[in-house]
Amino acid sequence: MAEHISPLDSITIVLVRPRVAENVGAAARVAFNMGINQLILVSNSRPAREPMAKMATHKAAHLIDNLLTFPTLEEALSEFSIVVGTTARRGRHRFVQQTVREMVDKLVGKISNNKVAILFGPEDAGLTNDDLKFCHMTSAIPTADFSSLNLAQAVAIHCYELHYAIIYAQKDLIPSPEFATTFELESMYNHLEESLTRINFIDSISHNHWMSNVRNLMGRLQLTAKDANIVRGICKKFNQYQQSKNCKL
Amino acid sequence: MAEHISPLDSITIVLVRPRVAENVGAAARVAFNMGINQLILVSNSRPAREPMAKMATHKAAHLIDNLLTFPTLEEALSEFSIVVGTTARRGRHRFVQQTVREMVDKLVGKISNNKVAILFGPEDAGLTNDDLKFCHMTSAIPTADFSSLNLAQAVAIHCYELHYAIIYAQKDLIPSPEFATTFELESMYNHLEESLTRINFIDSISHNHWMSNVRNLMGRLQLTAKDANIVRGICKKFNQYQQSKNCKL
Repeated sequence: MAEHISPLDSITIVLVRPRVAENVGAAARVAFNMGINQLILVSNSRPAREPMAKMATHKAAHLIDNLLTFPTLEEALSEFSIVVGTTARRGRHRFVQQTVREMVDKLVGKISNNKVAILFGPEDAGLTNDDLKFCHMTSAIPTADFSSLNLAQAVAIHCYELHYAIIYAQKDLIPSPEFATTFELESMYNHLEESLTRINFIDSISHNHWMSNVRNLMGRLQLTAKDANIVRGICKKFNQYQQSKNCKL
Repeated sequence: MAEHISPLDSITIVLVRPRVAENVGAAARVAFNMGINQLILVSNSRPAREPMAKMATHKAAHLIDNLLTFPTLEEALSEFSIVVGTTARRGRHRFVQQTVREMVDKLVGKISNNKVAILFGPEDAGLTNDDLKFCHMTSAIPTADFSSLNLAQAVAIHCYELHYAIIYAQKDLIPSPEFATTFELESMYNHLEESLTRINFIDSISHNHWMSNVRNLMGRLQLTAKDANIVRGICKKFNQYQQSKNCKL
């Protein structure tokens, strides 16, 4: 539909395990209205077209027609190099969480050369810690106490802030490095995990705890594809070295 | 529900002739989530409770239970002294319209001592010029071309910006003058109209055109109750003077 190239074309809305087909349609409608034309679902099955299309209205029908569905979040994210997880502002973390406006301010300088995924969890429970391990940034909408926004309204406010900063206020889009994609990062983590297991830094009991810390550390660095290749190269060489030592025993 | 006094208690969402009961419920939900607890309808009939309450969820049920309904906008606005009309960004005016963020920036310094109404038009057509004549400010959401936001999403983005500026960023709420209410202003306009008709400044043909210009001029001044009383006093005296002259003829 939009034939010119817009900086918002870098951005994809990813709905993780949504339960209500109407919410997918409402999210498509507001994304389109804010100039965002890519929508992805993480789901074991594709929701019924009718309720999605009805809420999307005919103007955003192309987002529903082109909707990609993946069974797992890891597969959905494989080509993305910047992943943002949206969370509710709750409990003791609410004052340290980054707001959507702060997240967008940081994101703007990175969107050229990178595909950006903005993740929204299911209506009732939000993203799990397992979903959030793929994220480089988080984003929360400031709300009154005890609030729970509707899924499409959370999508609306994120798309509005992205449109406002990038199209309306035309914040400077400086050329940014090309970061490693989720696929490249996950390959790197697999290699790292193997190496760390071999040297007994992690074992079957401490496994999740330490891998989560390692992911957190590496995630904050926001590695480029080249960085991730260097780490993988080291792990690979170490594993070869370690195997050759074992053979000599 | 909210027992402490919040600066957002000055603000009321006014839905003008909404057609879909579900949208009223969705608007109530998002207003509550952003800390705004007053909702008014302008409608000839009260929408069915069931679809409103379902979309509002039980948390925002008090907005539906306390929903005030007025047959005309003038009656709905009688106690309000700041009225904001929300419009779609369309056509040749789109670059001169004030955005919701700019409107909120101007509003923040005026909310103490004043009751503020934020008006939203019907889903299909928006506010008419006749509705907009009560407004002191307008507000439009920047969107992509050819867009049409859902009513509840437009309410969501306005409530979000109000919450962000007033509660989250805690912009300074300086004491502001108490402006004239719609009731006081409409009485003043009635007196003015009478005087301007008597001196033949307006006649039955030019009536709407000139009264609309006069309202525009006076509206920009944002009169206090005292200002409006002064204008009314002048008109009254003039009308008395003019009547006494007529009697002498």
